[in-house]
Amino acid sequence: MAGSSEPTRVMVAVNESSIKGYPHPSISCRAAFDWMLFKLVRSNTGGFHLLFLHVQVPDEDGFDDMDSIYASPADFQRMKQRDKIRGLHLLEYFVNQCHQMEIKCEAWIKQGDPKEVICSEVKRVQPDLLVVGSRGLGPFQRVFVGTVSEFCVKHADCPVITIKRKADETPQDPVDD
Amino acid sequence: MAGSSEPTRVMVAVNESSIKGYPHPSISCRAAFDWMLFKLVRSNTGGFHLLFLHVQVPDEDGFDDMDSIYASPADFQRMKQRDKIRGLHLLEYFVNQCHQMEIKCEAWIKQGDPKEVICSEVKRVQPDLLVVGSRGLGPFQRVFVGTVSEFCVKHADCPVITIKRKADETPQDPVDD
Repeated sequence: MAGSSEPTRVMVAVNESSIKGYPHPSISCRAAFDWMLFKLVRSNTGGFHLLFLHVQVPDEDGFDDMDSIYASPADFQRMKQRDKIRGLHLLEYFVNQCHQMEIKCEAWIKQGDPKEVICSEVKRVQPDLLVVGSRGLGPFQRVFVGTVSEFCVKHADCPVITIKRKADETPQDPVDD
Repeated sequence: MAGSSEPTRVMVAVNESSIKGYPHPSISCRAAFDWMLFKLVRSNTGGFHLLFLHVQVPDEDGFDDMDSIYASPADFQRMKQRDKIRGLHLLEYFVNQCHQMEIKCEAWIKQGDPKEVICSEVKRVQPDLLVVGSRGLGPFQRVFVGTVSEFCVKHADCPVITIKRKADETPQDPVDD
């Protein structure tokens, strides 16, 4: 019969909501996760192993809420620590859901340009499938915001499935997520 | 638990081999089918309903093997009949495999430009997922042959998964399939 004895390893790229921030997942990555559970994993929870990757973009405005003149090495340390905790809270959302459904999973955080890091992590971890949510922006909006999903479809070393955000879930500003 | 009671409807675009012709499926569509069974359907054969679409490109050289001057309406009829039978033999390959594994399936043939027809059939049939094989050609080769998969990723009204042909399955001329 079809199907390996090894579970299918699915890497899911997740990010925070641009509207609500941490610990809230973005609309499109939550929708991609739900779609995958509902349409691919279905009742076969033992057949899949989920790998959640969250890429944090180094925060250029990191000093907004502290005095940049007097920033000490300890301040930097605290910033890094704060980012790490926020990222972990985001991942907790997905890991908790998997635990409730008894789906095996792992989750980790990386820093950098999301599209580059996702593709290099695919190379390293070699999942069977990469799942990426997409805001489904038109070509005009894409010029300004770039799209991670398009880049991954072209460059990731494994099959990629892009799940577009539904029209009824699009916020007032479609660049938000 | 995850998963709808309705099976997940997966449309799989299939075509003939450019090397062997009918009834042989192309290397990339056979690989996409195998990958899907092995990695997504797995043992959950009742959870999926497969929809095989074969798009036949109207044959411009259809008169090669008959006398074009004396072609009668009956000749055209025979040509159409011959194409239909060839297409059915291709679909038989996939339908037989599904029957053996007790996976529910349907299969049909359409005429036209594959990328356009696939997207219009997605609109009509509304599958949950579209699976398309891809030769995985580089940008230079793509200029001359176009790619169905890239078009579908952009234009199909459902999530699309593109399965690239493996390097060790690439024939001498990579445009062949």
